[in-house]
Amino acid sequence: QKQERQIGDTTSIRTLIPESKQGLLKNVSMIANMNYAFRNEFVDGAYTQSRFKNEQFRLEIRGQVHEKVFFRFRDRYTRAQTSESLDNLSRSVDLAHIRVDINSRWSISAGKMCADWGAWEFDWNPIDIYEYSDIVEYADNFLSGVGFTYTPSAKNQWTFQILDSRTKTFEELYGTQPNYTASKAPLAFVSNWRGSLFDGKLKTIWSYSLFNEAQDLSGRSANMNYIALGNEFNFFPRFRFIYDFKWSDERLDRTGIVSQTIPDDLFPYSVSNTVYIGHWINLRYIVSQKVHLTFVGMLDIANWNNSFNDPENLTGEQNIRNAWGFIPAVEVYPWSNLNFRFFANWVGRVYDYSDYAQNRFGAQNSTTGRFTVGFITPLGIF
Amino acid sequence: QKQERQIGDTTSIRTLIPESKQGLLKNVSMIANMNYAFRNEFVDGAYTQSRFKNEQFRLEIRGQVHEKVFFRFRDRYTRAQTSESLDNLSRSVDLAHIRVDINSRWSISAGKMCADWGAWEFDWNPIDIYEYSDIVEYADNFLSGVGFTYTPSAKNQWTFQILDSRTKTFEELYGTQPNYTASKAPLAFVSNWRGSLFDGKLKTIWSYSLFNEAQDLSGRSANMNYIALGNEFNFFPRFRFIYDFKWSDERLDRTGIVSQTIPDDLFPYSVSNTVYIGHWINLRYIVSQKVHLTFVGMLDIANWNNSFNDPENLTGEQNIRNAWGFIPAVEVYPWSNLNFRFFANWVGRVYDYSDYAQNRFGAQNSTTGRFTVGFITPLGIF
Amino acid sequence: QKQERQIGDTTSIRTLIPESKQGLLKNVSMIANMNYAFRNEFVDGAYTQSRFKNEQFRLEIRGQVHEKVFFRFRDRYTRAQTSESLDNLSRSVDLAHIRVDINSRWSISAGKMCADWGAWEFDWNPIDIYEYSDIVEYADNFLSGVGFTYTPSAKNQWTFQILDSRTKTFEELYGTQPNYTASKAPLAFVSNWRGSLFDGKLKTIWSYSLFNEAQDLSGRSANMNYIALGNEFNFFPRFRFIYDFKWSDERLDRTGIVSQTIPDDLFPYSVSNTVYIGHWINLRYIVSQKVHLTFVGMLDIANWNNSFNDPENLTGEQNIRNAWGFIPAVEVYPWSNLNFRFFANWVGRVYDYSDYAQNRFGAQNSTTGRFTVGFITPLGIF
Repeated sequence: QKQERQIGDTTSIRTLIPESKQGLLKNVSMIANMNYAFRNEFVDGAYTQSRFKNEQFRLEIRGQVHEKVFFRFRDRYTRAQTSESLDNLSRSVDLAHIRVDINSRWSISAGKMCADWGAWEFDWNPIDIYEYSDIVEYADNFLSGVGFTYTPSAKNQWTFQILDSRTKTFEELYGTQPNYTASKAPLAFVSNWRGSLFDGKLKTIWSYSLFNEAQDLSGRSANMNYIALGNEFNFFPRFRFIYDFKWSDERLDRTGIVSQTIPDDLFPYSVSNTVYIGHWINLRYIVSQKVHLTFVGMLDIANWNNSFNDPENLTGEQNIRNAWGFIPAVEVYPWSNLNFRFFANWVGRVYDYSDYAQNRFGAQNSTTGRFTVGFITPLGIF
Repeated sequence: QKQERQIGDTTSIRTLIPESKQGLLKNVSMIANMNYAFRNEFVDGAYTQSRFKNEQFRLEIRGQVHEKVFFRFRDRYTRAQTSESLDNLSRSVDLAHIRVDINSRWSISAGKMCADWGAWEFDWNPIDIYEYSDIVEYADNFLSGVGFTYTPSAKNQWTFQILDSRTKTFEELYGTQPNYTASKAPLAFVSNWRGSLFDGKLKTIWSYSLFNEAQDLSGRSANMNYIALGNEFNFFPRFRFIYDFKWSDERLDRTGIVSQTIPDDLFPYSVSNTVYIGHWINLRYIVSQKVHLTFVGMLDIANWNNSFNDPENLTGEQNIRNAWGFIPAVEVYPWSNLNFRFFANWVGRVYDYSDYAQNRFGAQNSTTGRFTVGFITPLGIF
Repeated sequence: QKQERQIGDTTSIRTLIPESKQGLLKNVSMIANMNYAFRNEFVDGAYTQSRFKNEQFRLEIRGQVHEKVFFRFRDRYTRAQTSESLDNLSRSVDLAHIRVDINSRWSISAGKMCADWGAWEFDWNPIDIYEYSDIVEYADNFLSGVGFTYTPSAKNQWTFQILDSRTKTFEELYGTQPNYTASKAPLAFVSNWRGSLFDGKLKTIWSYSLFNEAQDLSGRSANMNYIALGNEFNFFPRFRFIYDFKWSDERLDRTGIVSQTIPDDLFPYSVSNTVYIGHWINLRYIVSQKVHLTFVGMLDIANWNNSFNDPENLTGEQNIRNAWGFIPAVEVYPWSNLNFRFFANWVGRVYDYSDYAQNRFGAQNSTTGRFTVGFITPLGIF
């Protein structure tokens, strides 16, 4: 018998595999999550460039690998493979976790996973998003930790997670902070309720998250609080409406849009006391099984509550910018037995800075747009 | 029912997979493309070093994933994983595309794919190449775009592709150009004819490509034109002869051999008006089913048509260098039911610079060689 | 018939796959090697931080792909993907090799593989190691080369390997050496005996390795010699005891602990004549099938035999540091049909520097510890 090195004692224990691998295989899938597009890009109304772009390419392996154990792994090929200083795993890896199903109601997950602070936008497969709203775009959405899920019925699901609050060190993320020191237990606590009300006519994903990131010099915690309230309305057979509300109160600017707007010669690190508020709507009208019309509208408001400390802030203005987005799209599903769609859309963004941000920080309003045609598919390889 | 996050709505549509995955699996393959060798290296006739080298290791997944959809993905583990500035995908990823078969004659491909500017050398699996000729070696062979293929019969196939002409930005590739500005639509247009004539005794891969990369200050396009004419002759049962002719006319030096020869203190960016001409022959003599003898000969000519502008170019010489290559090899196929061969070869290269390049740019003639033993296999994992 | 590019002539030869892929598949496995943990870390007795960490995540594909050919590939997602200067393959790739089984006694391996200089600690799957001893931790354990294995009976196995002695260039590894030049054939020669004596009550992994890395200015080889003697004792049904002895004599400091202790302003490159000695014991007490108690103890001694040349070394002290480790752990296996365990452990380390190292190099003694809970599994995906 030839023996390979560093194989581990799988033979003595794993009698499951050799006999029933055939059967087991049916429950494991490999998926190529693709969003591929030809983009025609505009800045401030002027055409700038055309190009083919692999918007998303994430290879995924998932499935039931044991009666009680589910496995999921997803890796992006649009980001460098690294070794992160806090959780050790590559930043290109979205997911690398197991889920143990204790019984039909309780399960435990461990590993790198989706932080469950979704409203609907974040809960979707990334390939379904033409452009993320600011708060989701700038967040660290895949974190290592442990999660507990309780599913008392098909109508309600409760999740509670304890996660690393970041993948990098405090200094890498926030710069050298003069007034804050890193937390010794930089954890995020996430709670989530998924409801299905009125026979599924209203579906919710509501979550509240607390990030314990740092303390100030007097020892008080400098936390981040995040609330997301996602609501899906299915009152008409062919029409779906979703409204997500997001509110992020950040003692240290984690989202970073405010800190990026402020020039480094003023504050070469993340500033304090920012608040981000997001509104996101999604409409889908099913013209026929093959043709759907969709529209996404979004508004992200970035405020700096500490701006009153700025002696040159004469008006007390706290708003830094409002970012608008609107994405009308046509989607065509050519096959009834494959989740595959061609799409054409317009992605319009308007970045509207406050007078304070313009005068004090030199921020400039701008618009971007792109007309895109492409395809989206979570392509099942096996 | 436990629900994972960011999974996408595959359940409602993809009825194909759960029922017939067993059958589907037969059409999907994973392949480890390996070229592994022990090299003994020589420079200018002197022995320099010996080492084991993973010449090629490209993992590939491909297959029919739906009645109408073919998928192919190939990633190298001999190159860093990145996120490219133009097409977003890692440079280590050769292929990440789908092919939709509209009918038996027409198909459309979209994603990152082989640019179809082959003659025979480029059309082969990279593991079959002991050393690429200059023009192929320095080209960006895997690009994102869309392709159309028309196959009227087994004797002819026509392909037309529109591709990003590069994966990086103009500045990353050509340096800061004083006389050219980047094209807003940096696309490559590729047309290709594959023919099988005289009962397959003559097989052709002929292509013409146009790259739209830049314009000069007066607004005229600065294109690259590339012609490759590949011809395979099978007039004898045990003997195959291939001749590839390649001709690349580059308004901006894309191949880069000329620009690399010119020191940066003269021109710290890619120069104008280069022409590369390649001749490549391949002979294979099948001694027996288990033993093959092969020989590759190649000559790549690098010319700088703009050299007359150089006031110190007194002779009007345009040639910069001629690079010769000759690779005799013995290949042994131990098994009739596995595409696996051991090989031993000699890879000889002669780099012969013109008097102009030697005197003006300090270029020096050199030869390299290596005696190599190893194995080649596109190993089917499943 | 649609033909993809760069596919290679697999169709004409590989008749094996289409017909018997179903059967073949049973012999190929994909494994997610995971060691995932929540760590509470201490330095010099003081609590420093808590975090979830993906200690190990290595995806593996292995199996019999042909009657005579075995394939194995393993890649880590906790390290950047690179292209190494010597063997070309990414450093994140542990394994990428084939094994050809000539007959029941002889086999040949080629590719990137485990250097077979194991004693028991190194021979295990990395997920089974809570913390490596110094000599193994600092070694380059995965190298490209070729290996021969002779297995006359179930009681004895002999392996001989010829490997690249490193994956990087001499300068990258050792710095600019004033007194040594790189070997032209930087190879490692590894011989290994695995024995099973007294009905398996004593199992051995004994190895001797010679690294040919450099020569000094007078032309004499500057080799590294490494001996590892692993001994596993199974005299009681519920109790296993292992003792590994390691001894590494390095003309040029490959392990590097001594060179790292010496400040760069003294010697900004790897020093000469270091010796590392390692003792490692492992105890396992099987309380029940589901509960195991384990203990690891280790001592790594780092000596600098050249220290007598240091005029400020008045005592002739050669010892630089002794590093102790002790790891008590509880392991719980919840399922009898899956190799999966939860664990809780304490990983204690003591770094004890000699008076010479403290006074001359400013080295400081320290202790680290962590209390960890997590899980370990070589999870079979298919």
